[in-house]
Amino acid sequence: MVCIYDSGVGGLGALVALRRAAPMTDIVYLGDTARVPYGTRDAATVRRYARESLDYLASLSPEAILVACGTVSTVALPALCGRYPMPVLGIVEAGVANALAEGPPSRIAVLGTEATVRSGTFASRLAALAPHAEVRSLACPLFVALAEAGLVAPDDPIPRLVAERTLAPLHDFRPEAVLLCCTHFPWLSPHVARAFPGARLIDCGKAAVTTLLPVLKPHGKGDLRFLVTDGAEAFRRVAHRMMGDISVSSFSTVTLTD
Amino acid sequence: MVCIYDSGVGGLGALVALRRAAPMTDIVYLGDTARVPYGTRDAATVRRYARESLDYLASLSPEAILVACGTVSTVALPALCGRYPMPVLGIVEAGVANALAEGPPSRIAVLGTEATVRSGTFASRLAALAPHAEVRSLACPLFVALAEAGLVAPDDPIPRLVAERTLAPLHDFRPEAVLLCCTHFPWLSPHVARAFPGARLIDCGKAAVTTLLPVLKPHGKGDLRFLVTDGAEAFRRVAHRMMGDISVSSFSTVTLTD
Repeated sequence: MVCIYDSGVGGLGALVALRRAAPMTDIVYLGDTARVPYGTRDAATVRRYARESLDYLASLSPEAILVACGTVSTVALPALCGRYPMPVLGIVEAGVANALAEGPPSRIAVLGTEATVRSGTFASRLAALAPHAEVRSLACPLFVALAEAGLVAPDDPIPRLVAERTLAPLHDFRPEAVLLCCTHFPWLSPHVARAFPGARLIDCGKAAVTTLLPVLKPHGKGDLRFLVTDGAEAFRRVAHRMMGDISVSSFSTVTLTD
Repeated sequence: MVCIYDSGVGGLGALVALRRAAPMTDIVYLGDTARVPYGTRDAATVRRYARESLDYLASLSPEAILVACGTVSTVALPALCGRYPMPVLGIVEAGVANALAEGPPSRIAVLGTEATVRSGTFASRLAALAPHAEVRSLACPLFVALAEAGLVAPDDPIPRLVAERTLAPLHDFRPEAVLLCCTHFPWLSPHVARAFPGARLIDCGKAAVTTLLPVLKPHGKGDLRFLVTDGAEAFRRVAHRMMGDISVSSFSTVTLTD
């Protein structure tokens, strides 16, 4: 059994990718819906939420935990991953590796939450591995709210206007590669692509699933359990819409504490 | 000393109104910025957050506590207000009284968060006090995110489009009075007014300040202390912009627990 952890619905894209790649793996998905969003909060608060969530998941003794949340991966994971006996994988290394796989692009845009951009984690990994690439980071604070509200359709003027205004500071930069460092952002891909014609968009959450596959044991029944910290109906609605025909075994609410 | 409690920056409008009406009153403002927004969460989660926040404020022995949050006022306060030795005032009674002050309107719109609308609290108070008025309630989930991001300017097409689409279900209802039952919503007043020409807009948070004034003792130094549960810079920025020339005595971070 493996666990996927996100602040809310953002990790569902990684979940779908994992289910397709490993149909029989048992999965527990934790969405900390009582405290979403994470990306607007301080590093200390994110670290506390992440420690409580990961302590809980580690107590279930999974084979591995995938942190499908860019904010936790950048702000909390470096200090926490040594705390657990199983592999705890974030989205940074996989996302950066994917961006550089076809040779380092000259100009790379890093799009994330405020906390992720402030951490500088993606920018420093890129600087280490592709020192000649020019990297610009930009926080896109309203993208998470739009995704959680389902306002993402390609022909919808609301996400189009928000994306245009948010991404305007990088218009003249003309990135060749765009790292989507928050797992909510791929839902807005058509709007991001419109702002950066010809750029390659990298879904860091999906990239991270490929790093998880080698550590999976070849057994399981294909169970999928959802755990949420707030039983909000909105999560169920979005999850069922995104999951397509993937069947859900159970849905329950947990309370996380120190 | 009186306390004002909100999930985030929504209560700042009530704070400004209170400072103007009672310049020498000492005020402690608590924004639960580590867990904002409240209005998208379950009633059980909101009640837990409200109990922790009010327990903390009550331990400071204020003369009164103003709950300048529509979600807490409707979802949690009826079960909690008897728990404390001092008056704990919400925004429901004052908002409803203000709506009916000039005689009951024929058609009243209740705009709130999802949790507030689901609670039915405003609708049932209006039904009791103005049985002949037609009341329609509508959740406006994205309004809080826009207000927290500062995207509220009257000529900005993003809040204009969001307001148009959100309020469209009440277009043919043509309300005479519109109750803004979330303290974030008055920031979007120009956009709400455009959707309902000629309607009277009621700021329930400001209305609640008038119910607080009679319980204030005539002393104090005009101190203003901010407490937040997450030291997010964003709160400071918005607070300083909204406060104008009102001076702040201190700004500190607290951790709330059961």
